[in-house]
Amino acid sequence: MQLAIAVHSSLNKELEDKIKRFFENLKCNPTILVGGYWGGMKVVVDEAIMKKLKVVVILPEEREDVELPPDVIRINSGCEYRCRSVILVRSADLLVSLGGEVGTTIEIFMAYAMGKRALVLSDTGFSTDKLKTAFSEYLDNRKVMKVEYYSSPEDLAKEVCKPITQIKTNFG
Amino acid sequence: MQLAIAVHSSLNKELEDKIKRFFENLKCNPTILVGGYWGGMKVVVDEAIMKKLKVVVILPEEREDVELPPDVIRINSGCEYRCRSVILVRSADLLVSLGGEVGTTIEIFMAYAMGKRALVLSDTGFSTDKLKTAFSEYLDNRKVMKVEYYSSPEDLAKEVCKPITQIKTNFG
Amino acid sequence: MQLAIAVHSSLNKELEDKIKRFFENLKCNPTILVGGYWGGMKVVVDEAIMKKLKVVVILPEEREDVELPPDVIRINSGCEYRCRSVILVRSADLLVSLGGEVGTTIEIFMAYAMGKRALVLSDTGFSTDKLKTAFSEYLDNRKVMKVEYYSSPEDLAKEVCKPITQIKTNFG
Amino acid sequence: MQLAIAVHSSLNKELEDKIKRFFENLKCNPTILVGGYWGGMKVVVDEAIMKKLKVVVILPEEREDVELPPDVIRINSGCEYRCRSVILVRSADLLVSLGGEVGTTIEIFMAYAMGKRALVLSDTGFSTDKLKTAFSEYLDNRKVMKVEYYSSPEDLAKEVCKPITQIKTNFG
Repeated sequence: MQLAIAVHSSLNKELEDKIKRFFENLKCNPTILVGGYWGGMKVVVDEAIMKKLKVVVILPEEREDVELPPDVIRINSGCEYRCRSVILVRSADLLVSLGGEVGTTIEIFMAYAMGKRALVLSDTGFSTDKLKTAFSEYLDNRKVMKVEYYSSPEDLAKEVCKPITQIKTNFG
Repeated sequence: MQLAIAVHSSLNKELEDKIKRFFENLKCNPTILVGGYWGGMKVVVDEAIMKKLKVVVILPEEREDVELPPDVIRINSGCEYRCRSVILVRSADLLVSLGGEVGTTIEIFMAYAMGKRALVLSDTGFSTDKLKTAFSEYLDNRKVMKVEYYSSPEDLAKEVCKPITQIKTNFG
Repeated sequence: MQLAIAVHSSLNKELEDKIKRFFENLKCNPTILVGGYWGGMKVVVDEAIMKKLKVVVILPEEREDVELPPDVIRINSGCEYRCRSVILVRSADLLVSLGGEVGTTIEIFMAYAMGKRALVLSDTGFSTDKLKTAFSEYLDNRKVMKVEYYSSPEDLAKEVCKPITQIKTNFG
Repeated sequence: MQLAIAVHSSLNKELEDKIKRFFENLKCNPTILVGGYWGGMKVVVDEAIMKKLKVVVILPEEREDVELPPDVIRINSGCEYRCRSVILVRSADLLVSLGGEVGTTIEIFMAYAMGKRALVLSDTGFSTDKLKTAFSEYLDNRKVMKVEYYSSPEDLAKEVCKPITQIKTNFG
């Protein structure tokens, strides 16, 4: 399974803590896809490496010069942030949001638009928390796929490792 | 000025009516950028042509075979829907949403993330109406640029033609 | 008709002269697509404007800040040089090369790979001249579409304005 | 090291044999990047797996439904063939061509344009053989980086595993 993790490009202690709790409770071995190696994404990469997961970092053109730890696979997208996110989400079987601002929000919407499951951590203090209020079940009126909200990183990690049934949709 | 118009890929009578009222009240001559020639986007193109505006249609790879009216400029993006939207929004000075579902919502978030003004028609019956509830002013906690909500296409059209002061930002 | 013009990103007197002779002898009104507004591409844009042709400039992300003349349509690709060329060539009915280095060469190969006609000016002093020696008829063994070499900008301009029969192919 | 392998999208016995000889003689452990899982690219992936190398397949949108062997990392580019090649080449430290037609040729030119080393197998019977005749040293007049031609897959494999000094350039 390829698991995209959407998370804020900055970091605070609480976010770091939640990312660590997510990985500590992840009992399967997905390949981790992430959009950078800074902010929350850096912690994701470092935690995933410690668990010996395969890690792929898909970089926007603006940050292709970032150094990555050995054994991490680098994809230089050659394109800007949102375009990089398209590649990230399309390559994933499943998207997890651990909290973030507009970039993370866009990745959640992209997952929905591509017919991919999105598991969203709520109560993070970031803007992605607002999705639960506005879109409690579906992200649009087509009602294809429920967004799944979790308030604990532990529950989220457990859900990721359950066998999934993929529904594929693709909206224009 | 290059004006991107985000609007639903399907159509109903009410949406058609609002698009027409928007163009009837548009008293300046922006180049219109739009992401297809079907649903609400087809009405946008046809109305813009009637007003003798320059029109550019930026197509996703899946629909590059769509026929366009003469004099409309075709951009074949060579990439999927969301990637096509990146090009659409980046090329615009300003984005107007006339109502839509997840694709339109993503374009509004992209505009904000790229530091571009987004003028959003509310009370459309589409999912983009929910943004006003969840994000009454800003689309994330960075609070860079207020989203501007309008309940009438006439007011929206007037706002588009006011001189703008562009703020450029670009988030990762 | 949408005509992509591939040409060097630098300029010398001879290239400038040939671009001008090409436009002076262009007796039809294609929309001109070009990948920038510097070097030979700047002369292309300026000449096209003088002939009152519609002009679309498709910019790589690295140069999206370039100022363009009024009435020129700007497409900000959000991606790097070669990716920008994909959009340029895919959007064209026909590609003309007026001489260039590796970027121009890639655009000629892309046109062939996408099954589009490529008309190539030879004897320009640039690296694209070498294609005629190595690939006198076809750019690969599939032999889909002859590359057409011209030694004078006048003949090339005349050929562009002849009615075309498009062959569509797309190789992986 | 991330090694992109450019090779034909079809297959014959001779090509298969050369791919196998290349991998048999590869005495280091690069991560292999390749643009599909059909034709010569399928043999590349299968050989790399047998050598327990990490493998990343970067797919064009048209073929994102292709099934891949377990443990192979899938990148769904969301864009067409040439755009997929941009991501492939940008993500590589080094490009090896084992012979191919126009798609492979474009990837060699892209590597040069991005200032990356390209090692090209000659005498393959494919169109990439013509590059040696037309461009015996450099792919354009800027003469940044010699293309390196090899007539045996064994020598090519040895060269790949020598320590490299990367030169970075990026042409518009």
